[in-house]
Amino acid sequence: MGTDIVERRDDGKVCHLTINRPAVGNTLSLAVIRRVKEHLVALEQEKSISVIVIRGAGTKIFCAGHDLVEVDSNDDPEFFRELEAECCEMMLRMRVQPQIIVAAVDGVATAAGCQLVAAADLAVATRASRFATPGVNIGLWCVTPMVAVSRAIAPKHAMQLLVTGELHSSDYAFRTGLINEIVEDGDLDKRVDELAAKISGKSSYTLALGKKAFYAQLEMTERQAYEYVSEVGVRNMQHHDAKEGIRAFVEKRAPVWVGR
Amino acid sequence: MGTDIVERRDDGKVCHLTINRPAVGNTLSLAVIRRVKEHLVALEQEKSISVIVIRGAGTKIFCAGHDLVEVDSNDDPEFFRELEAECCEMMLRMRVQPQIIVAAVDGVATAAGCQLVAAADLAVATRASRFATPGVNIGLWCVTPMVAVSRAIAPKHAMQLLVTGELHSSDYAFRTGLINEIVEDGDLDKRVDELAAKISGKSSYTLALGKKAFYAQLEMTERQAYEYVSEVGVRNMQHHDAKEGIRAFVEKRAPVWVGR
Amino acid sequence: MGTDIVERRDDGKVCHLTINRPAVGNTLSLAVIRRVKEHLVALEQEKSISVIVIRGAGTKIFCAGHDLVEVDSNDDPEFFRELEAECCEMMLRMRVQPQIIVAAVDGVATAAGCQLVAAADLAVATRASRFATPGVNIGLWCVTPMVAVSRAIAPKHAMQLLVTGELHSSDYAFRTGLINEIVEDGDLDKRVDELAAKISGKSSYTLALGKKAFYAQLEMTERQAYEYVSEVGVRNMQHHDAKEGIRAFVEKRAPVWVGR
Repeated sequence: MGTDIVERRDDGKVCHLTINRPAVGNTLSLAVIRRVKEHLVALEQEKSISVIVIRGAGTKIFCAGHDLVEVDSNDDPEFFRELEAECCEMMLRMRVQPQIIVAAVDGVATAAGCQLVAAADLAVATRASRFATPGVNIGLWCVTPMVAVSRAIAPKHAMQLLVTGELHSSDYAFRTGLINEIVEDGDLDKRVDELAAKISGKSSYTLALGKKAFYAQLEMTERQAYEYVSEVGVRNMQHHDAKEGIRAFVEKRAPVWVGR
Repeated sequence: MGTDIVERRDDGKVCHLTINRPAVGNTLSLAVIRRVKEHLVALEQEKSISVIVIRGAGTKIFCAGHDLVEVDSNDDPEFFRELEAECCEMMLRMRVQPQIIVAAVDGVATAAGCQLVAAADLAVATRASRFATPGVNIGLWCVTPMVAVSRAIAPKHAMQLLVTGELHSSDYAFRTGLINEIVEDGDLDKRVDELAAKISGKSSYTLALGKKAFYAQLEMTERQAYEYVSEVGVRNMQHHDAKEGIRAFVEKRAPVWVGR
Repeated sequence: MGTDIVERRDDGKVCHLTINRPAVGNTLSLAVIRRVKEHLVALEQEKSISVIVIRGAGTKIFCAGHDLVEVDSNDDPEFFRELEAECCEMMLRMRVQPQIIVAAVDGVATAAGCQLVAAADLAVATRASRFATPGVNIGLWCVTPMVAVSRAIAPKHAMQLLVTGELHSSDYAFRTGLINEIVEDGDLDKRVDELAAKISGKSSYTLALGKKAFYAQLEMTERQAYEYVSEVGVRNMQHHDAKEGIRAFVEKRAPVWVGR
């Protein structure tokens, strides 16, 4: 692991971003949030990358949310306002990022760390991982994590996390839909590499188009959504990769993508 | 099984529609979609039918989505546009159909076939059934299936289906809420008949009114929804079947419905 | 248990409301609905109460919905209209009540009784509890329960309850997210007291602010939600209890709340 507060390592079409402050719980200081955003902005233009994996350095804490020492040492309300705004922008950016984002969780994910899991497109976690929105314990309701968490899981589950502030197990996260999969401790990298390889084998054009349409249509009425995706589908159909994919399927051979 | 591409068989108040192209995966060619729609349009007027069961012929494939050979052989973008539009209309029609629609799934349900399951009001599947939105494998994101699937299950589960393109088990479909029930292979018809009989024993007026209100209120704010359903409730209350139902309940006898 | 149709008993910061008509299934007659509302209106001003627990008297029936004998004996459509309107107002009030509302379910919860469970912020139920929206059995679709139930659980599960009208187990309610937890019969009070104590140990200011923001942001687009909660977060941050909570956390001591 290098010295960047958010390390980047590429492996073919997969980019691994690691929040690299294990000594302080991989917390999202303002500097970390901005560094993640810089990586995401750069990656937006990098058409060779199809999947982004987000990790926390070490195995104890995935990400413990905001840096409370930093928050406590800033009396200026403008600092907190800026921190919140930057954090929201980062989370919203994850939704429109053309790559598929996988949270690879090994350890505790709390507050904005739990939000990172919720805001990712997919999440895989080790059995020992734990999840919480504990802001209520310090008088500061996890308002921004709530937005992502309450869009990932059912209302009663989200409320349970928010009002108890307690750590919940990987089983709980799996059962409620906060994560897609539990792996045994030690198997996380192998499984995430496998999943990332599978996804990055698809057309990067199709992944980007599909992901964008996914979150857009979720906020429409069903009729609006069908009208919207019909246009998206026709556009997709006219792209090389769809024509190639169908032809390859009919001819029983592997497709050769052009990508985005 | 007859020679109609979408067979209809009635059994009392239950209508069984079977997509009858087992040799080609019961795919939804434009002709099949139009035939399903014709049946649904006719059924809209048939007040004696309360439940529609949708099946695929045979036990291997429930429905494999669009007919890719048909799609591949049509270079005209207008053909694909029309196919998408007709398919969306069919799926939207299922939501406003006055009958309760049960998908009886025996085998593989992929792409628009998986959407059929998601768009049905209820779904029962055999243990061996499998579910996927595999468009991404051929460069053509399952955009229209996505609309129904992402309204049936949690976002991370929908994304998992959409980006991996993989077949998922009946257990997965059950756990995520894509289907209501798993039955052992061979028990499907018996269980679906039982369920359809139970539902068709209710007032067809009440079922139609309730189903319409269900999907309408889902897209409103909670306050709007309460205002809307209050009016629906008062209308329901003034109908013969509600007065009769309450009276029969108080008098401890079976109600006699007039229906819609 | 006293003679009030809705008994109130306070225990520190926790208020226990018990619908006290066990001989008639703790049904929500118009008088009961109004009495619950009176309690909620009074509690809105009582800043010393942080949690409200809702129960039905006895162990057989939590709440069996509307009082059908009352409904049957009133031919005036205005009566039913008023009953519906008052019931909706009560349920909507639960969402904006500054206290966290826990449904403690011991026995059968049907129709508007099932809605009470769905409309509560959290729900704990005994293993023997059962849940249904059986209006369809008497020709009167559970339209108002549907609003709360379909916002608590996935559409196919809500439809299953609504069209079958059948009693579903506590396991079903747990699996679908209608309740947060199952306890063994006899352990309900102990577990609910534990949960209520945990929640009421938080700042009442933070609980009220967070709950209000929770339901408000659920009905916004994700971007609107982030904008809205950013302002809420800044307001929260400027309150004594957040400053105190963070300071106490950094100083590793227990916080002393001022509350709302």
